[in-house]
Amino acid sequence: MLQQKHLLGLEDYPAEDIQTIIDTAFEFRAVLERPIKKVPSLQGKTVVNLFFENSTRTRISFELAQKRLSADTVNFSASSSSLKKGESFKDTAQNIEAMKIDAIVMRHPTPGSPLQLTKYVDAVVINAGDGTHEHPTQAILDMMSLQERFGKVAGLKVGIIGDIAHSRVARSNIFGLTSLGAEITVCGPATLIPPEIERLGVTVSYDLDAVLDWADAVNVLRIQRERMGVGLFPSVREYRSLFGITVERLERIGKEVVIMHPGPMNRGVEIDSTVADGDQAIILDQVLNGVASRMAVLFLLLGGKI
Amino acid sequence: MLQQKHLLGLEDYPAEDIQTIIDTAFEFRAVLERPIKKVPSLQGKTVVNLFFENSTRTRISFELAQKRLSADTVNFSASSSSLKKGESFKDTAQNIEAMKIDAIVMRHPTPGSPLQLTKYVDAVVINAGDGTHEHPTQAILDMMSLQERFGKVAGLKVGIIGDIAHSRVARSNIFGLTSLGAEITVCGPATLIPPEIERLGVTVSYDLDAVLDWADAVNVLRIQRERMGVGLFPSVREYRSLFGITVERLERIGKEVVIMHPGPMNRGVEIDSTVADGDQAIILDQVLNGVASRMAVLFLLLGGKI
Amino acid sequence: MLQQKHLLGLEDYPAEDIQTIIDTAFEFRAVLERPIKKVPSLQGKTVVNLFFENSTRTRISFELAQKRLSADTVNFSASSSSLKKGESFKDTAQNIEAMKIDAIVMRHPTPGSPLQLTKYVDAVVINAGDGTHEHPTQAILDMMSLQERFGKVAGLKVGIIGDIAHSRVARSNIFGLTSLGAEITVCGPATLIPPEIERLGVTVSYDLDAVLDWADAVNVLRIQRERMGVGLFPSVREYRSLFGITVERLERIGKEVVIMHPGPMNRGVEIDSTVADGDQAIILDQVLNGVASRMAVLFLLLGGKI
Repeated sequence: MLQQKHLLGLEDYPAEDIQTIIDTAFEFRAVLERPIKKVPSLQGKTVVNLFFENSTRTRISFELAQKRLSADTVNFSASSSSLKKGESFKDTAQNIEAMKIDAIVMRHPTPGSPLQLTKYVDAVVINAGDGTHEHPTQAILDMMSLQERFGKVAGLKVGIIGDIAHSRVARSNIFGLTSLGAEITVCGPATLIPPEIERLGVTVSYDLDAVLDWADAVNVLRIQRERMGVGLFPSVREYRSLFGITVERLERIGKEVVIMHPGPMNRGVEIDSTVADGDQAIILDQVLNGVASRMAVLFLLLGGKI
Repeated sequence: MLQQKHLLGLEDYPAEDIQTIIDTAFEFRAVLERPIKKVPSLQGKTVVNLFFENSTRTRISFELAQKRLSADTVNFSASSSSLKKGESFKDTAQNIEAMKIDAIVMRHPTPGSPLQLTKYVDAVVINAGDGTHEHPTQAILDMMSLQERFGKVAGLKVGIIGDIAHSRVARSNIFGLTSLGAEITVCGPATLIPPEIERLGVTVSYDLDAVLDWADAVNVLRIQRERMGVGLFPSVREYRSLFGITVERLERIGKEVVIMHPGPMNRGVEIDSTVADGDQAIILDQVLNGVASRMAVLFLLLGGKI
Repeated sequence: MLQQKHLLGLEDYPAEDIQTIIDTAFEFRAVLERPIKKVPSLQGKTVVNLFFENSTRTRISFELAQKRLSADTVNFSASSSSLKKGESFKDTAQNIEAMKIDAIVMRHPTPGSPLQLTKYVDAVVINAGDGTHEHPTQAILDMMSLQERFGKVAGLKVGIIGDIAHSRVARSNIFGLTSLGAEITVCGPATLIPPEIERLGVTVSYDLDAVLDWADAVNVLRIQRERMGVGLFPSVREYRSLFGITVERLERIGKEVVIMHPGPMNRGVEIDSTVADGDQAIILDQVLNGVASRMAVLFLLLGGKI
């Protein structure tokens, strides 16, 4: 039902297919609100979660999505794998597929590795994050959460705040949101904004207050604390004062802005605790919508029946 | 059907509810004796095993209980989690729950953390051991095993032998057994008996032979070998001679005493191999009753239908 | 339906039972080619994968086999187990079985440990590799793959190439293939051929070209690179020139030889990439047949119903 066989990223992904995924995700969201949060749609299908990086949060979200579709699911983490014995990525992939796997959900530190994987296997490939490149299901759940709150994504003003340069979440959001017709302003320290990012159809700002004044919603990126104070990165204190979503800052702007965060949060750095737990934040809705979005992606790509 | 929503500990837990759990556990024990050891009671329910400490034995027991109730189950071990990225316990908990989890089974090194968890989530919380505080399902399976052997718990004379001061198993057993009307004597090195433990309704003895003479059953606690010979802790040899359940000691008392151990055992330290494998020991019954007890707890707290 | 309760190895294993397993595996292979790759045969049965060594490949193959038979499956890896707390192998085994396990699939570094396990438990024991001793399901999938290609195993000429001395795959293949009536030549560096191996009914050769000239198929063993160049082991370059399955070597012999490899491969050492990916190789068929073979073993030993 989707035009592409895989979900590798949202760059050049058809807008109508993004919308189909989101619409289907709302149906599964309704399933998740029932006492029996399970459907038999993918019974007899097998999905492997192939994680070359630790990511409990994303892995559990995908695993729950698979189990609630009644698929069989196998977890494969690279740390305990044959890769340690020197086996190539290609051989690992082909071996897994040879066991008659229907889909592979892959997290990998190298940008482009899901695309590479599609050259080795016939199974459906779903990118669960490839380095600084893309994290399409995160962007889909973000857009679903915006649609839930605002009714539609088209025409929305969305700020993306933080380390844009190293963020696959930012990239997938930019591709998806522009495709669906939202306006985007990215905002962060100048050293963390990629040059020529305007070419992706976004505006750049270094003034968070102005962005908050303008935006319907902001997506607050996680800051890698280990980068703080090193080289071109500001200190924690400096970061918070310029780019942190603080209570004072939100009060000052005198209008409501919806707050999103892909997690895990550094409370007190990029976001204040009071904000994260406040009424404007839809952070936990994002988590639930993540399971629903991943159910929708798996369902649509594996041709499940409702 | 139980008065409390969670199972955090047996301190102040209603006696009739302990009995309900045990009675239900016997029904599930019968299921476990069948060729098809599975019931559809919790189909569509999701349980997360949130283990902040390694415990293969307890985790497998819970996981089997969940699968035999047809629940979906996801394992989360702290070592590979977002906690490493600095995420707070509260955020981890709320994120997991946001995925529409029905129950969380938690093992955590900090006493009171399951209670803390109930403040963050709406899901049912089951304590699978919190530091030196409580391990309620272990005590329930111990009481179930006593009822299996003796017909009832009320009126039984039970010795608890070993390092009482550091044992959550001892504490949960004390609360549960006194609640059901058993008499308890705790026995171990003076340095490992908490001061004023009599306030919990138990007798203290430092004379294992006297306790064995008196008791219908003894629960032999595991000794942490790494503590041996350090500070106030006796050496292995000294411990065994004073508090080990040896063949000679059991022969000397000239009557039968039922021997329990929560495992894993240090054979030759707190218990002799011959004793552990002998007719008086019900240690492997405890293991089976553990699965049945955990099925009962999950079933009753999640409102499953038989 | 099989004469032995367990599958510990193929030494002295009845030939007709090997054939029954292979024939059943072909039936499950047909299931794996369907859209719904699952049968309810082992519903309500529980299998524990007890892995004392990492082996993602074998563990996933068994886990998929179990799930596609609708068994409940629990993974137990020794690294996180009570064994670290000093618990004995016997206690670990008996504890697992006490939870009403129907079968234990065990990988263990010590030869003979699966046999030892059968003395402690009533559950069915399946050896998933015990040190340098046996790896029976690997040999069964190898024979199934030969039968798939050639119609039957009896009368086939099979070369086994590489480090015969340290290979459980070689040993199980030798027992199984001779039992089914194949002829075997083992070939490798003299230091890696066990003395008196002819007693097992095989011929020894140090001339790979002669073996390739003679053979219908060769099973190319994985070389442990860490052993290379140490002591009696040749260097990578030397190994490849004498015992590597190279393109040049296969072209020179001027006839087709079927190439098998148990994986993971060291491409460019014991096998060239072009050969591994070429038409003569049935390496990925082996992987699929591995799942089917393990389904057959589990099904037959656990008395499942189709």
